[in-house]
Amino acid sequence: MPLNAPPSGALFMIYCVSNSINCVMSPPSRDDSPFLTGSRMGSMPIIEDNLPIRRLEISDHKKGFVELLSQLTVCPPLSESEFQDRFSEISNLGDSHCIYVVEDPTTEGIIATGSVFIEKKFIRGGSKVGHVEDVVVAKSARGLHLGQRIVKHLVDHAKAAGCYKVVLACAPELREFYEKCGFVEKNVQMTVYF
Amino acid sequence: MPLNAPPSGALFMIYCVSNSINCVMSPPSRDDSPFLTGSRMGSMPIIEDNLPIRRLEISDHKKGFVELLSQLTVCPPLSESEFQDRFSEISNLGDSHCIYVVEDPTTEGIIATGSVFIEKKFIRGGSKVGHVEDVVVAKSARGLHLGQRIVKHLVDHAKAAGCYKVVLACAPELREFYEKCGFVEKNVQMTVYF
Repeated sequence: MPLNAPPSGALFMIYCVSNSINCVMSPPSRDDSPFLTGSRMGSMPIIEDNLPIRRLEISDHKKGFVELLSQLTVCPPLSESEFQDRFSEISNLGDSHCIYVVEDPTTEGIIATGSVFIEKKFIRGGSKVGHVEDVVVAKSARGLHLGQRIVKHLVDHAKAAGCYKVVLACAPELREFYEKCGFVEKNVQMTVYF
Repeated sequence: MPLNAPPSGALFMIYCVSNSINCVMSPPSRDDSPFLTGSRMGSMPIIEDNLPIRRLEISDHKKGFVELLSQLTVCPPLSESEFQDRFSEISNLGDSHCIYVVEDPTTEGIIATGSVFIEKKFIRGGSKVGHVEDVVVAKSARGLHLGQRIVKHLVDHAKAAGCYKVVLACAPELREFYEKCGFVEKNVQMTVYF
């Protein structure tokens, strides 16, 4: 996969703003190496393997957050005011609906995102379920295992919030990816489109 | 399926409390007949086929709401205070998280329920998705198509809230039921349990 690398020799800065609820950003596993292999290694700079995962910020409208989502599904541009309105609605839910992102500090562009919302239930003694949605990594940043890191972060968030499980729906061809993230196939997803 | 019928000749009263957002309670279709067929017809009273669907109320703790959920999954009893706390948390979300119920006005017991919560997104021009959860009909009231009516109500709620789709996850053996409710199979559901 192509990699939009920062200028040769540039280092990714560490940049983190987060008010998440006890989300532990675990060190990347050996399987999580962001380094490219083979001949590319010679021409590409080393990329930090621990780019921070932080909460979505209102300034991310200018950092290509919506454009990144358009790599996932139908996602036309939003005006600044539309973005701010939706951002406020979600922010008002606090830790019950969190969108996390990874920023490329060199380009200041958002290169990965995923969201989780916490559903409060009456079952299981008044438990909760975490729902993972809208996980996408920029085409330019694939192969760095950012997807796995984002998903782990969302799962950690749900666990810290007291959920007894986390669920998501995905196309069958992504089953293997989510199995690597610790998920198991459970049910079928049914949909009605309007 | 067994039917815990009201005393012979009793009529179900119409009872409705609802503050839902433009949820139209459509008349039941021919396929939605609550009447039993065959020999049971002779010994069972006619049951109203339009028992109202209303929002969960705080008094439903005493009407067997939690016990009904225990027919769906692990659901130990909640104290009144635990129930009230969770009820308040969900109620504070307004139309974004609604639990609907059907009450048997003769026994004043809750005999069917289902919930829907509205996820606000940035995709599709800042659209929304409705998530249907925890649909269950009391064993004593199955065969009356209350499940289909509840699901239709939840879908109507999501549509009125501006969702572009409604999703749910179910065991494969319930696929046919949800197809009758207008759903199509779309994806696989993946889960992590803690």
